[in-house]
Amino acid sequence: MRAWLPYESIADAEAAIGKIPENVEVDLFTGGDDGWPDSIAEVEFLVMPYMQGTGPLDRVAEMTSLQVVQTQTAGYEGVIDLLPAGVSLCNAAGVHDTATAELAVALALDNGRKLDVFARNQPEGRWKPQWGNSIADQRVLIIGYGHIGKGIEARLSGFETASITKVASRARDDIRGVDELDQLLPEADVVFVIAPYTPRTDKLLDAEKLALLPDGALVVNVARGKLIDTEALIAETGSGRLRAALDVTEPEPLPADHPLWRAPGVVISPHIGGAASSFEPRIGRLIGEQLRRWAAGEELLNKVN
Amino acid sequence: MRAWLPYESIADAEAAIGKIPENVEVDLFTGGDDGWPDSIAEVEFLVMPYMQGTGPLDRVAEMTSLQVVQTQTAGYEGVIDLLPAGVSLCNAAGVHDTATAELAVALALDNGRKLDVFARNQPEGRWKPQWGNSIADQRVLIIGYGHIGKGIEARLSGFETASITKVASRARDDIRGVDELDQLLPEADVVFVIAPYTPRTDKLLDAEKLALLPDGALVVNVARGKLIDTEALIAETGSGRLRAALDVTEPEPLPADHPLWRAPGVVISPHIGGAASSFEPRIGRLIGEQLRRWAAGEELLNKVN
Repeated sequence: MRAWLPYESIADAEAAIGKIPENVEVDLFTGGDDGWPDSIAEVEFLVMPYMQGTGPLDRVAEMTSLQVVQTQTAGYEGVIDLLPAGVSLCNAAGVHDTATAELAVALALDNGRKLDVFARNQPEGRWKPQWGNSIADQRVLIIGYGHIGKGIEARLSGFETASITKVASRARDDIRGVDELDQLLPEADVVFVIAPYTPRTDKLLDAEKLALLPDGALVVNVARGKLIDTEALIAETGSGRLRAALDVTEPEPLPADHPLWRAPGVVISPHIGGAASSFEPRIGRLIGEQLRRWAAGEELLNKVN
Repeated sequence: MRAWLPYESIADAEAAIGKIPENVEVDLFTGGDDGWPDSIAEVEFLVMPYMQGTGPLDRVAEMTSLQVVQTQTAGYEGVIDLLPAGVSLCNAAGVHDTATAELAVALALDNGRKLDVFARNQPEGRWKPQWGNSIADQRVLIIGYGHIGKGIEARLSGFETASITKVASRARDDIRGVDELDQLLPEADVVFVIAPYTPRTDKLLDAEKLALLPDGALVVNVARGKLIDTEALIAETGSGRLRAALDVTEPEPLPADHPLWRAPGVVISPHIGGAASSFEPRIGRLIGEQLRRWAAGEELLNKVN
């Protein structure tokens, strides 16, 4: 059995994923045009190197033994279309949750306490205090209550918020339904958007919905840019009525001359929700577990096809 | 009984502090040269307007009925020396804790996730992702375990840190003593400094102590700049070995040409730990309670003399 693993050495691989099963032969494949192992016709289990798009599948036609492709991302657009019938595709759902929930809270605090303003004052050595908006005492709304939404809630638990209201596609227990947004938005000071993007959630926060938020409210988006109507958000932040902290935008990457970059009260990070140190041990554990399961003939996790 | 309260109107005052006791006459005093009420010889209970230093006591010699001075800050340097014998001084200890603990976590996340870098890229519309350091999986050390230290611990509880170790002046229960720092620093990835400043804590983190931290460690200071040896911190961050996020510096304000502003991996906010919206309701509740106690002849809170 042969696997291609995205590490620089076997020692690195075992440090990250644990002991490689005895019946698995490993080649190292970190991507790039020169990086193809000679065993391309024998590779059965391929872990996609990170942040290289579909490049690692450029020679998929030669991978005639391929059985499993494991991505390091939750998304697998593009990848799935390239795979021959019969190849299992497994994604990395869950692996980025920790980093993304953390970033959501970081962005809310950053915007509220004006750390972006101070960061821009720093190169000039400008000591200029400004009053900030605490997340304490604020009424929080989390739109989307999967793992990341729960992670945001857990992280906010110690921050003395006035309340945390959760919204999912359907109401259940203490979770409100997305059809209740018209009642919930007027009572929300800080809104975290972490719903999945689907045709039904396209522009979920449009001009009408944004208008329901109280003056001074903060919108944090760590999901997909298309969940918010960009033009409407520019209007509401441009007037100074709302604030926003966005790790995702529409379009993305945001062109240098896009007005969203310069809307007042808007903080933008370049889609780095999952890109932090907490990713490494979590993806390592997933790859290790998948490899162990595959070598033992067990069912794989996170199969998406 | 006559009180001077730092609000623009009686309605504002009652919104902030609750109903004014019936036996108390109120004048509004928000400071400034033109702001002196005519009742200067009758004022008995003075609330110091915020962020005006000792200016509100410029005419203390005329305040011949003065009984109580209530500050809106925890510090009262300068104020205490100006008061005639017999005047009670009460500070606002605790009122800034929420905002300060929040800022400490905000600064750690901001530095880790490189939000300062993205903030500086934003005016130019530069979409340039960078890998970040999560606070998840990190070993946290909190030096100083009063209300703010506890507030930092509470806020970190949902962030999947590897561990949180607390240090106070003396070991007790699950709290370690400051004399154990030499053992604790080598095991700390993120250090929050929130100890009181005293002659004994002057340069508590000096070159020797900073050298004990592992490569890549982050030092967050929301206490006083003098708790850290600035030169040593510049050396350790300048080499890229340590990172820092500082709301307080030595000296302060930091001069525009000070090298700390430009040390790599250093984030600086201009001592705004307490300056956020969460301050308002908390100081309002304190002033209201003090006024009620004074009007009822009860013992005041937070007496410092």
